[in-house]
Amino acid sequence: MPPAKMKDLPLSKVYRLLEPGPVVLLTTARRGRANVMTMSWHMMVEFEPPLVACVVSAANHSFAALQAAGECVIAVPARRLARQVVQVGNSSGRRIDKFAAFRLTPLPAERVRAPLIAECFANLECRVADRRMVNRYNLFILEVVKAWIDPAQRNPRTIHHHGYGRFVVDGPTIKLKSAMR
Amino acid sequence: MPPAKMKDLPLSKVYRLLEPGPVVLLTTARRGRANVMTMSWHMMVEFEPPLVACVVSAANHSFAALQAAGECVIAVPARRLARQVVQVGNSSGRRIDKFAAFRLTPLPAERVRAPLIAECFANLECRVADRRMVNRYNLFILEVVKAWIDPAQRNPRTIHHHGYGRFVVDGPTIKLKSAMR
Repeated sequence: MPPAKMKDLPLSKVYRLLEPGPVVLLTTARRGRANVMTMSWHMMVEFEPPLVACVVSAANHSFAALQAAGECVIAVPARRLARQVVQVGNSSGRRIDKFAAFRLTPLPAERVRAPLIAECFANLECRVADRRMVNRYNLFILEVVKAWIDPAQRNPRTIHHHGYGRFVVDGPTIKLKSAMR
Repeated sequence: MPPAKMKDLPLSKVYRLLEPGPVVLLTTARRGRANVMTMSWHMMVEFEPPLVACVVSAANHSFAALQAAGECVIAVPARRLARQVVQVGNSSGRRIDKFAAFRLTPLPAERVRAPLIAECFANLECRVADRRMVNRYNLFILEVVKAWIDPAQRNPRTIHHHGYGRFVVDGPTIKLKSAMR
């Protein structure tokens, strides 16, 4: 059952979402309870199947859920969600239901139990593929197993964290002749 | 000997440069010969001392130099270097001296043999700190041991790669109240 309004995105295009370095939201589910955190420490590792490395601090409530479930969703928010992104980052799922508190709508995913976020323009369903760097660096290697895009959000502007609540919003696009993928 | 015009940047501030996801240049030196490549697959792993993860494909000429020397410089270019960044990404150090070909000026670094790039607004001298993920993912963990900033370049706009020579340039900055570092 495809989530309402979301459109399938080919896995080969996932890197174009994450490579530019947007702040993202990461959702998890554990014992029937969903949580969401804000994350900026992520990068692509392989094009296809898409592998993504990310750092989730053991101090985050999401860490245990990611370890236990081995699944998550990376949701990419646009500029209009900036305030909620900061609120999510400044609170803990230990104490509150962040979806309800910050008006984010969880939607069932197709391949994982962690929820998609309806308000985000892209949602990537992920499985933990390698935990060897978790103990030392809290670094997970994720495989994106399913990707969704919201076709109603055209030319979304992502936000990039510069520390302490300062974000740079996407500006103009330039196109240069390149053989680089 | 501090490089001309460059100013020391505290290591605790390095994450604010890389976390927003700019395209960067990576320099190496091997057998007295310097090289430079374009890179977008990098992320912060630790604040201080700053640890950075990055993926350098084994197909890149820089891979062998990084493996052999265990050192590199991550240089952060602003918008005005976009054309050169693409030229660097579309050519190989196997065949040409990219510094000369694309008018980039190598400067001696303080702690590593790889050169700084005079035209970049930030230069991070790095040592390879962990190679355990190199065989499987071409993923290096680097420690930033020295950081430089060019005070003459104010409010540099970085560029973010969306694939195939399409880049988004930094736009406006927004500031939200946040407890997040």
